[in-house]
Amino acid sequence: MNREMAKMTWKEFDQIKETKPVILPIGSMEQHGYHLPMQTDVIISSGLAKMLAEQIDGIVAPPVNYGYKSQPSSGGGPLFPGTIDLNGVTLIQLVHDILVEFARDGVKKMFLVNGHFENEPYIIEAMDMVTKEYDIQLVLASWWDNITDDVVEKVFDEVPFPSWALEHAAITETSMVMVFAPELVHMDRFVEEPVYHPGPYYKYPVQKGMVPDSGALATARTSSLEKGELLVHGIVDEFVKIYKEALV
Amino acid sequence: MNREMAKMTWKEFDQIKETKPVILPIGSMEQHGYHLPMQTDVIISSGLAKMLAEQIDGIVAPPVNYGYKSQPSSGGGPLFPGTIDLNGVTLIQLVHDILVEFARDGVKKMFLVNGHFENEPYIIEAMDMVTKEYDIQLVLASWWDNITDDVVEKVFDEVPFPSWALEHAAITETSMVMVFAPELVHMDRFVEEPVYHPGPYYKYPVQKGMVPDSGALATARTSSLEKGELLVHGIVDEFVKIYKEALV
Amino acid sequence: MNREMAKMTWKEFDQIKETKPVILPIGSMEQHGYHLPMQTDVIISSGLAKMLAEQIDGIVAPPVNYGYKSQPSSGGGPLFPGTIDLNGVTLIQLVHDILVEFARDGVKKMFLVNGHFENEPYIIEAMDMVTKEYDIQLVLASWWDNITDDVVEKVFDEVPFPSWALEHAAITETSMVMVFAPELVHMDRFVEEPVYHPGPYYKYPVQKGMVPDSGALATARTSSLEKGELLVHGIVDEFVKIYKEALV
Amino acid sequence: MNREMAKMTWKEFDQIKETKPVILPIGSMEQHGYHLPMQTDVIISSGLAKMLAEQIDGIVAPPVNYGYKSQPSSGGGPLFPGTIDLNGVTLIQLVHDILVEFARDGVKKMFLVNGHFENEPYIIEAMDMVTKEYDIQLVLASWWDNITDDVVEKVFDEVPFPSWALEHAAITETSMVMVFAPELVHMDRFVEEPVYHPGPYYKYPVQKGMVPDSGALATARTSSLEKGELLVHGIVDEFVKIYKEALV
Amino acid sequence: MNREMAKMTWKEFDQIKETKPVILPIGSMEQHGYHLPMQTDVIISSGLAKMLAEQIDGIVAPPVNYGYKSQPSSGGGPLFPGTIDLNGVTLIQLVHDILVEFARDGVKKMFLVNGHFENEPYIIEAMDMVTKEYDIQLVLASWWDNITDDVVEKVFDEVPFPSWALEHAAITETSMVMVFAPELVHMDRFVEEPVYHPGPYYKYPVQKGMVPDSGALATARTSSLEKGELLVHGIVDEFVKIYKEALV
Amino acid sequence: MNREMAKMTWKEFDQIKETKPVILPIGSMEQHGYHLPMQTDVIISSGLAKMLAEQIDGIVAPPVNYGYKSQPSSGGGPLFPGTIDLNGVTLIQLVHDILVEFARDGVKKMFLVNGHFENEPYIIEAMDMVTKEYDIQLVLASWWDNITDDVVEKVFDEVPFPSWALEHAAITETSMVMVFAPELVHMDRFVEEPVYHPGPYYKYPVQKGMVPDSGALATARTSSLEKGELLVHGIVDEFVKIYKEALV
Repeated sequence: MNREMAKMTWKEFDQIKETKPVILPIGSMEQHGYHLPMQTDVIISSGLAKMLAEQIDGIVAPPVNYGYKSQPSSGGGPLFPGTIDLNGVTLIQLVHDILVEFARDGVKKMFLVNGHFENEPYIIEAMDMVTKEYDIQLVLASWWDNITDDVVEKVFDEVPFPSWALEHAAITETSMVMVFAPELVHMDRFVEEPVYHPGPYYKYPVQKGMVPDSGALATARTSSLEKGELLVHGIVDEFVKIYKEALV
Repeated sequence: MNREMAKMTWKEFDQIKETKPVILPIGSMEQHGYHLPMQTDVIISSGLAKMLAEQIDGIVAPPVNYGYKSQPSSGGGPLFPGTIDLNGVTLIQLVHDILVEFARDGVKKMFLVNGHFENEPYIIEAMDMVTKEYDIQLVLASWWDNITDDVVEKVFDEVPFPSWALEHAAITETSMVMVFAPELVHMDRFVEEPVYHPGPYYKYPVQKGMVPDSGALATARTSSLEKGELLVHGIVDEFVKIYKEALV
Repeated sequence: MNREMAKMTWKEFDQIKETKPVILPIGSMEQHGYHLPMQTDVIISSGLAKMLAEQIDGIVAPPVNYGYKSQPSSGGGPLFPGTIDLNGVTLIQLVHDILVEFARDGVKKMFLVNGHFENEPYIIEAMDMVTKEYDIQLVLASWWDNITDDVVEKVFDEVPFPSWALEHAAITETSMVMVFAPELVHMDRFVEEPVYHPGPYYKYPVQKGMVPDSGALATARTSSLEKGELLVHGIVDEFVKIYKEALV
Repeated sequence: MNREMAKMTWKEFDQIKETKPVILPIGSMEQHGYHLPMQTDVIISSGLAKMLAEQIDGIVAPPVNYGYKSQPSSGGGPLFPGTIDLNGVTLIQLVHDILVEFARDGVKKMFLVNGHFENEPYIIEAMDMVTKEYDIQLVLASWWDNITDDVVEKVFDEVPFPSWALEHAAITETSMVMVFAPELVHMDRFVEEPVYHPGPYYKYPVQKGMVPDSGALATARTSSLEKGELLVHGIVDEFVKIYKEALV
Repeated sequence: MNREMAKMTWKEFDQIKETKPVILPIGSMEQHGYHLPMQTDVIISSGLAKMLAEQIDGIVAPPVNYGYKSQPSSGGGPLFPGTIDLNGVTLIQLVHDILVEFARDGVKKMFLVNGHFENEPYIIEAMDMVTKEYDIQLVLASWWDNITDDVVEKVFDEVPFPSWALEHAAITETSMVMVFAPELVHMDRFVEEPVYHPGPYYKYPVQKGMVPDSGALATARTSSLEKGELLVHGIVDEFVKIYKEALV
Repeated sequence: MNREMAKMTWKEFDQIKETKPVILPIGSMEQHGYHLPMQTDVIISSGLAKMLAEQIDGIVAPPVNYGYKSQPSSGGGPLFPGTIDLNGVTLIQLVHDILVEFARDGVKKMFLVNGHFENEPYIIEAMDMVTKEYDIQLVLASWWDNITDDVVEKVFDEVPFPSWALEHAAITETSMVMVFAPELVHMDRFVEEPVYHPGPYYKYPVQKGMVPDSGALATARTSSLEKGELLVHGIVDEFVKIYKEALV
């Protein structure tokens, strides 16, 4: 069964819109080191969304391809070419309009899968605005918040876990792209860099040299397809729990 | 050679960003009759963008997946489920931010390929705003404006040409989806309906019954892969001419 | 009977506001060649509005004097001095606020007469927003969409019809200003220029030399008061049909 | 010599745009009692603008026909039918865009003539924004701030002067409309009402009964063409002084 | 009893929110001559708010510390360092959001005490927007509108009354700060300057030299604690009358 | 020496504005359990700002008293009365305008002290926008990101450390208010509740019962003045390090 709304006719969607949950993947266009593609966040959020759809009998909406501004300490920041940053207001309005339209179509439940750290507050703002006006149940889950300790331990078997913000173009993302788009992972280009310790503050304007040269904020060494499988299945299991807890 | 920016690393993009044109496909999520998928406009604009990239040695940016509000007389309007409409301000800001970021990255030339009739004025507004602030050359071309009389004649060999606004989910779009995503064309579901003659005015609020039941605004009968090939090659030839005239 | 709301007292308006349709002319401040005044679009839309008011027993609201940005291929573009362009968002809000206020006053039906090509999508956006919130019936008609083939044939008896977008400061507008404000037509200043063929695309930033020197996009030769009369009566007849079809 | 920009061709404007000041009248669509027309503020500001243009060799731009929200204590408020109120943001943007376009055209000096009390702060906001970005000299003057004590004394020879905020649809406005559009003054409909004393505060939501029934906030008795002439000449004299002091 | 909401727990507020009026002081960060502190408008509006709260059994919300742009003829203008000006749209939204939240909390009546001349129209705009959507009664009062003739006479016993707009950093404000924060009044730094007569117009861009060097627009000479006491008690008495007239 | 800008005259500020850093405290109006006041975030950020000013010879600007929307899992959420939430766009604009004005005044360095978890992304957006236009160095630091492991260990000597998001109205905030405003801490009203485990996702609309009844998200037991002193001094020490690293 096709679960991608992009590929459905309106009539197909019409028959299921009020009964099935709609899953919206939200990504970004952002540098991911020397070895990962720039739409890593779309690839992962879309990949997880499709897996989740199978588990909860849902529909996957077309992804939001561009996201909020990359920040140095969680995404490398705006100085890397190819990172295409939306203003906060733009992302709020974009997600707002999409959610409103689903609500107006009669959709009752939506599950937003976020793949880009910096998107989160702007998506939440849109969710708050929409649910003040429309009767729809919305859940937002980011993958990094949904990895059990057990999985973390297995994934970080050799390398110490840095922090979720620093897991940018690092083991978790690399391993998951190995699952969803292995041909786009270039481990041969990966360069080990000194451990990056961003300060506990935000500095603007952003300046060159704040982050590692490659744009990867932690090591991708020891990434593997196996770890990727462990991650994506573990995350989707948690997403299913959320769905059952919050949307049913 | 990979021309899809989504699949590039930032380093790959960095080496070509100032010399190669960036092509941005802009589509919509909109009903396209009983027989075409809802992301038809993304499929066509992305497909043409990739072909164009080959011809002008360009790069294809990730598509804009959601577009401006469908209107009854050119897209069937907002009452069809699955049509996800952005507000005008939202689309202006979205395209604005994307263009600004490419300009800040040092990109010199961009070619915007539009696949959704209603998007046009909002894209133009964004282009105007960006070029008042940034030094970048921008061109917008919609596919229906770039079909030569010769091609029109061949495509409308049996059926009379209705108008570009009405060529929604009709012969041209159907034939082109046969080229780019044949598995998503369901000609068996196509239903011939009486010829639709929208009045020469706009009426709001939009009401049920204004447009044909299927959402196709003209017939898709006589659509074929051959016509699709004729169209896409003809259009891309025209796009290449535009590029040579306006961006080089 | 006075049909201009500008000249009414509030008490006069109060007595008819719920029963009579309100007609809103929307124009622009835009170059119209060497021979026509810059408020041609206000003159024509206001003139037609007054004629329509007589036919449908309506009221004419004060015109919107400034409109959306002139574009090279339909209005000559922003480089002609005296062309005063509103941003898209501004026009949306302006029309939105005006329509909302009429709706709050209890007006049930409004007929918007548009005289400036580039305004159309922004007016539509405002209409869509207002009718989502307020209970009012709105119709928008542009004069060029409401000229029957019969009239076109008679008007373009010598000169071939170029296209509606190019009918800028050309035969139709010139002839109609001859009806509404003959003292402002300076045919002696008209200069015939080579036929203008804009490319099938939009290029930004707009550059000098894209359009004919005079700003007229097609010839005004053969304009006449007779043609003007033919046009305005023909258009108003069509407007009356629209009114009867869509607003009664 | 024609001084109305609306009636000029772009070429005429082009020859004078950098040397002559542009005068922009800003009005409103607002109830003005039982005896004055709803575009009183446009009539007065346009009338004064034309007189001023003669004195300072200036050009008059098309008026802004709709203004900021009428308030009970200075315009009767929003509950009178026919009062069409713009939101503050809308008026700021509208005036902003108009001023920006004149600045981009090369105009060096503009004189804004305001005829509607409530417009003032929003016009000032636009002026501040524009002059932060563009090199243009702007002056705003409202007519009621430019009546000398001498004129006040003569105008309020029988009736005591209430306050400028309350001079709504009262002696000064009535007398000036007698100058500019005498056929629109209906003194026979004027009804004397008890003196209105608005409280020294603003109350929202606005409620019925806050203001006199007619909408006139002070008496129009003793209005006359002579007083009107005295007023308009006196005001224009002051405007000329401002021009000489602030814009030359 | 504590009447400052800032110091309450939510539970304390919960018990009184529907029965007691909430008083919101709105100030600015603006130069006030050589002798008064830059938050004079916050000090005065907060001081009056607390006194009013005692009289009407109300609650005082935290003050709005930043306000709309200082203007030369009423606040000295933007060129004095330390004057921190909000854009009009920002102040509208800020006050809007605060009022909406109180309305959503179930508060029925709010009394806004304004201490900064230039804020007034933007606060009113917010009040209008909120009361169109929410069921709450709102009153705005500025202190200078609520001084009886009797008090004016006593305060301006030696110095002639200039006008309320010019009473900036002058006798009334100085005397009131002597009541609420005497340690912040530096009369020894006060410098008598020539009487300032702003022209009856607004000029942008604002230029140096338009206003007195000190930023005080009228003399502060003869300010005293006694006058301050007279003023604040007189004003609060008027505020109580307003409350009884408009909110009970 | 007075370091509070609110209490300075403009002349005092003028003499130091280009040499001394300006510190801006940003708080919120938000429930903080049964035992802490609603402006806890203003109290703490202002208190830390004043201490920091002493250490780095800085100036403290008036605090931003209202902040972004409280969220259930970090602040209890919008359903507690007295929590006054700004929209995201409002907070961005408010902080933007304040920062712009300091930049225009010639201030070179600003240190923003944030006391409310949910504010962070919106402050960052404002910082990004401002530094794209103006030449000013900006740093944002939130107190919870600047507590060394050593201090954490001493503070959480009995109670296990929950997480910074959950440290709402808990030991750290309670102890710090004991330092800055001890009279506002009501430990007698504190009620121990079951440990709160928010799910790893965001759910809208927010529903009653999602969070502990009191609004405190973790226990405040073992709070003490000593711990407060340890915290504030530890945090300020870290702030000083940031200042030296990022702004000098």
